[in-house]
Amino acid sequence: MLTDFGLQDGYVAEMRGVVMSHDFEIRLVDITHEIAPQDVHGGAYVLSTVIERFPQGTVYLCVVDPGVGTARRPIVVRHRLGTFVGPDNGLFTPILGEDVVEVVEIVPERLGAVDVSRTFHGRDLFAPAAARAAVGANIHCLGNVVTDPIVLEGWDLVASGDGIQGRVLHIDRFGNAITNIPEQALEGRKGVLVKVGEHQLDDVAKTYGDVAQGQWLALFGSQRTLELSINGGNAAETLGIRPGDSVSVSWEG
Amino acid sequence: MLTDFGLQDGYVAEMRGVVMSHDFEIRLVDITHEIAPQDVHGGAYVLSTVIERFPQGTVYLCVVDPGVGTARRPIVVRHRLGTFVGPDNGLFTPILGEDVVEVVEIVPERLGAVDVSRTFHGRDLFAPAAARAAVGANIHCLGNVVTDPIVLEGWDLVASGDGIQGRVLHIDRFGNAITNIPEQALEGRKGVLVKVGEHQLDDVAKTYGDVAQGQWLALFGSQRTLELSINGGNAAETLGIRPGDSVSVSWEG
Amino acid sequence: MLTDFGLQDGYVAEMRGVVMSHDFEIRLVDITHEIAPQDVHGGAYVLSTVIERFPQGTVYLCVVDPGVGTARRPIVVRHRLGTFVGPDNGLFTPILGEDVVEVVEIVPERLGAVDVSRTFHGRDLFAPAAARAAVGANIHCLGNVVTDPIVLEGWDLVASGDGIQGRVLHIDRFGNAITNIPEQALEGRKGVLVKVGEHQLDDVAKTYGDVAQGQWLALFGSQRTLELSINGGNAAETLGIRPGDSVSVSWEG
Repeated sequence: MLTDFGLQDGYVAEMRGVVMSHDFEIRLVDITHEIAPQDVHGGAYVLSTVIERFPQGTVYLCVVDPGVGTARRPIVVRHRLGTFVGPDNGLFTPILGEDVVEVVEIVPERLGAVDVSRTFHGRDLFAPAAARAAVGANIHCLGNVVTDPIVLEGWDLVASGDGIQGRVLHIDRFGNAITNIPEQALEGRKGVLVKVGEHQLDDVAKTYGDVAQGQWLALFGSQRTLELSINGGNAAETLGIRPGDSVSVSWEG
Repeated sequence: MLTDFGLQDGYVAEMRGVVMSHDFEIRLVDITHEIAPQDVHGGAYVLSTVIERFPQGTVYLCVVDPGVGTARRPIVVRHRLGTFVGPDNGLFTPILGEDVVEVVEIVPERLGAVDVSRTFHGRDLFAPAAARAAVGANIHCLGNVVTDPIVLEGWDLVASGDGIQGRVLHIDRFGNAITNIPEQALEGRKGVLVKVGEHQLDDVAKTYGDVAQGQWLALFGSQRTLELSINGGNAAETLGIRPGDSVSVSWEG
Repeated sequence: MLTDFGLQDGYVAEMRGVVMSHDFEIRLVDITHEIAPQDVHGGAYVLSTVIERFPQGTVYLCVVDPGVGTARRPIVVRHRLGTFVGPDNGLFTPILGEDVVEVVEIVPERLGAVDVSRTFHGRDLFAPAAARAAVGANIHCLGNVVTDPIVLEGWDLVASGDGIQGRVLHIDRFGNAITNIPEQALEGRKGVLVKVGEHQLDDVAKTYGDVAQGQWLALFGSQRTLELSINGGNAAETLGIRPGDSVSVSWEG
């Protein structure tokens, strides 16, 4: 489960209850419920970091849903790595590639959902659909095939001959600014220059300990993409970096 | 489990450990641990939102317990929907109605609890009692029958011929102010007027999208009760609404 | 699981996924993920409060790891109460006593971990090692024996003839300042005087209700150690107490 509901209200528990009432044996695991309210980009990013880690066939119930109650479609995505259930608003951008088997738009009646609220599809549509998927329901029993799920802009890199331009996808708890620039893009490059806002750096470090306490650095983080950090500090706060900010890397050869 | 312990300390984990040590097969599910410290009303509200969602027979271990160590009674409530274990301080107000089968006051000795701390009954009384209930113990093995569990004031509505007066039960993460005024009370009414503090509104909307971004609205939320919200904003902060505030609705016919 | 990763990022979920991918039947239980970032002392304290509560044989996966990527050793501790997996930086101080059976330094190759990141050993070393321990792997299959795990300073008490000096180990959610001074140390003492900073108190209370609302008190908390609290208030904030502060207790006889 991945949501922006937080844990202080009963919303997540209502969804857990719906799934358990469908089949008590379904195993529930939290990804996070602390996505910033209505931050579809942030939800998509966190989802992208975990999907390789869970067992194949896992059902991902994901709700960051500012458009609930409007015409945005509720969907289920069958994918090589598992099944993804949630709103069609770009939240599934990281998995919408060649590994997708099929996408359907949920038909509430097929879930027996006759009294769907206008504000909480997580409980009334997505949790019942995910529970059915978890016990092996065929995706066609949940809805009708669609072929044009929504993809967020800004996830792609802009590459040129002597550089690459990406963006900050996420600020983590420690203030690390995580970008979409992969380690491979810089492999073997010399004279590398990293720029973010007015700050620039002429090297990529291997580990936090490569620079003095309080110094900032760029390194390849646990997702194998470029991160901007401060050794023992909070880079995003100190350098004024926000999600969506542009980051460019150039090289001499 | 529902508590006000938060997740930064070891308190919730101690309770989990006690339950698992009693029987490793008991399934533990969190409702929330982020009830505001000692906010019995908030705990009661969140509990009320989830009880219809979990399977019948679920054991609810609920600890929001400002009176721990005083004379307030530790109780177990057997109810049509499940078993509720916690302090007798009004936390169980939402379920104390005709669906109650029986209430007992916990007798520590019957749990084998000989060394009960004065500050943490969640671990020393409620978790052991809940674990026993979860594996099927008869409620009379846990304590002696009592007939006067405590009920919080202010949960009831005040109705008159051309209106109804309720109150804000809860502010959720998104700043929605959730009241105890049910959808049925307004069914078929015309010329509806909603008042909270100095603010008033002459309509109830169907969905957030019915008003412009940044505008406030009243709508029936996922609990089928009246909520005050701002489309894309935080109604409680912007309008200065707090839990307990009075909300009145009047109509012309 | 006990970490300082927080729950807003995907880090904890990545670790959960790694464990579940190793063996889907392993039961995952959170202790906390809200240890203050890089606060090894705080992590050690919370760990100390829960280990007696979980079933014997539990595997504790603990990651508060400011030195990740440096030469600090990844270790596994076999102990009378269970198995502890994490960094060798003092986090395991509370359990490093006579109940330790053996300690090994993890050898990544024995986990089949060929591509270990420099910043996230929680996912790449500790989770795989803990998963193997949970399904019964012999500790020698995980690494080589070491005999000098790191112990934090300041956990011990300083006792004299007519008093004892301890320190604040932890501030909990309610603002209680929890010390390492055990109840036994004061048993039968008369004329007890408690000092912290410039504040002093000439009695130890039994329960919060022993003093008026808003008054501060010292009492033995749920860990059976001395706590400084305010009835209905936040002692740490009001009295300016921080983790590590010295607390002394003297007596007349």
